Amino acid sequence: MFDVIKGDLEILEQGLQEAVTSTNELVTEVGMHLVTSGGKRIRPALCLLSARGGKAFDLPHVLPLAEALELIHTASLVHDDVIDEADTRRGAATANARWNNQVAILSGDYIFARAFALLAEAGYGDYVLKRLAELVCNLSVGEIIQDHAIYQASRGMADYFERIQKKTADFLEICCELGGLVGGMDREEAGKLAEYGHCIGMAFQITDDLLDIEQTTEKIGKPAGNDIRQGIVTLPVIRALETSPDAKELEAIVTDMEMTDEMVERALAIVKATDGVDFAKAKADEYLAHAKAVLPDSLPADIRESYEMVADFIGDRDF
Amino acid sequence: MFDVIKGDLEILEQGLQEAVTSTNELVTEVGMHLVTSGGKRIRPALCLLSARGGKAFDLPHVLPLAEALELIHTASLVHDDVIDEADTRRGAATANARWNNQVAILSGDYIFARAFALLAEAGYGDYVLKRLAELVCNLSVGEIIQDHAIYQASRGMADYFERIQKKTADFLEICCELGGLVGGMDREEAGKLAEYGHCIGMAFQITDDLLDIEQTTEKIGKPAGNDIRQGIVTLPVIRALETSPDAKELEAIVTDMEMTDEMVERALAIVKATDGVDFAKAKADEYLAHAKAVLPDSLPADIRESYEMVADFIGDRDF
Repeated sequence: MFDVIKGDLEILEQGLQEAVTSTNELVTEVGMHLVTSGGKRIRPALCLLSARGGKAFDLPHVLPLAEALELIHTASLVHDDVIDEADTRRGAATANARWNNQVAILSGDYIFARAFALLAEAGYGDYVLKRLAELVCNLSVGEIIQDHAIYQASRGMADYFERIQKKTADFLEICCELGGLVGGMDREEAGKLAEYGHCIGMAFQITDDLLDIEQTTEKIGKPAGNDIRQGIVTLPVIRALETSPDAKELEAIVTDMEMTDEMVERALAIVKATDGVDFAKAKADEYLAHAKAVLPDSLPADIRESYEMVADFIGDRDF
Repeated sequence: MFDVIKGDLEILEQGLQEAVTSTNELVTEVGMHLVTSGGKRIRPALCLLSARGGKAFDLPHVLPLAEALELIHTASLVHDDVIDEADTRRGAATANARWNNQVAILSGDYIFARAFALLAEAGYGDYVLKRLAELVCNLSVGEIIQDHAIYQASRGMADYFERIQKKTADFLEICCELGGLVGGMDREEAGKLAEYGHCIGMAFQITDDLLDIEQTTEKIGKPAGNDIRQGIVTLPVIRALETSPDAKELEAIVTDMEMTDEMVERALAIVKATDGVDFAKAKADEYLAHAKAVLPDSLPADIRESYEMVADFIGDRDF
């Protein structure tokens, strides 16, 4: 999918490791553990693709941005793992599990700050910095909202879309937009890529949320209905709350903080009896179609092809 | 002490409250709680004083910088309180106690990011951003080092000075330097103020550490010898480890993770029998004398006077 930027991504790995290298051994050790434990590099990949679509592409110039995007994502996950008291992520020990909460919180702060230091050193100017600082604000607010919405099914569809935008779509939007700008695109072209990023982000999160309803435990490696169990209502559930004859029963279940396994099963059955899953799939497909349609004509063919493959990949929903 | 900038500091309060106002009620509530619970505003005060010493002083232009400095300090304290599981700070409930760790960690991230957003919006350019991003890196690394040095008395004097520089002096240095630059000073003038900030920061931390040895419980509101109890060795203890006939006994105590109250008392007695306290006081006075001497001749008289008063205030050590 990312053949065009395969070489770029290899150089990026080197850069990420350099970025977390500190004068202190422990800090370096934690940082290396975090940046080498299997991230998919979606964010830097989108950034690099966009930059390669610009007329002034220069790899050394765009790399610090691509690295900063991955570091911001990493720092945010490190803090999430402290909050969730998670032991593993992507099969590796979390920082809080391998060291402790102090090391994890401070390493997260360190990695956030390293990202901003890279951006300042590269001299991208205030717009890039402003967009990324606001992104971190929105990521934090988005998570506080998500926690707040737990067990409050009444929040409805508009709140759901706001939540997944803050959680996922804004970030992918910024990766595409800023990559384009730093690669020499004008605001209009970069704005189209931003829209592409927003749309695939929305589709990605809708699809990711769907897996929790659709898939078996074996396939996704965690119990199905996990979101419901945690009181997080996603699109198919919200649709079912609006259309199911059993909506009242469903609402009683998803707002019950003492939910049993049987109740989760029953909620899944109610949702599956509605068009909730198809509705969510159709929404995701709408976003993906729009993502492809909005790609600017000026894009080189190989870049456009990669972007289309990313959209198709998300549409396949089998990852 | 800060008469010259009294009016500026009142406007700053307003700005801090606006800076933490979000579209989300809970986020705003947490932010307001944090910025209105009694910070001494030392950092923005130093920044504003320096800016007023410059030939291009413009209050609206420097305020976002002063606010960002206080926000970075606030965010750092919020994360410290999560790490220390502290219930109160300055007499008010901590964010982790009043809400929970999730809210506290994410609010800290939010406030860090708001600080960088303010800086980017104000358009101070890359140097200011780079200095502040590196500051946050160093604050985090400094705390990780401090934790690491616990119960390892062998670390010695050079490590102590490095630790307090990262913990306190770098921050005050940056407040003075960047305030001066944004107020229109040239690099050389701002560099002298940076040195002033470094020196009062070192003196402040040495003095603060001294209180833990010298004062009674009633006066400082926490048990004397608290640092020793936590395995943190400060300057008088390090001096005693170098000069006391009872150095071996002292070392055994301060590296013992199961320290009793009697052992803490004995360690305090050993330290007080040496010139450790006087040695630390002399070091602090050296820094303060240098701080005053380095103030540039070009400073307006009222600004210079304020700076001298700050140094004298730290020298009085009775706060």
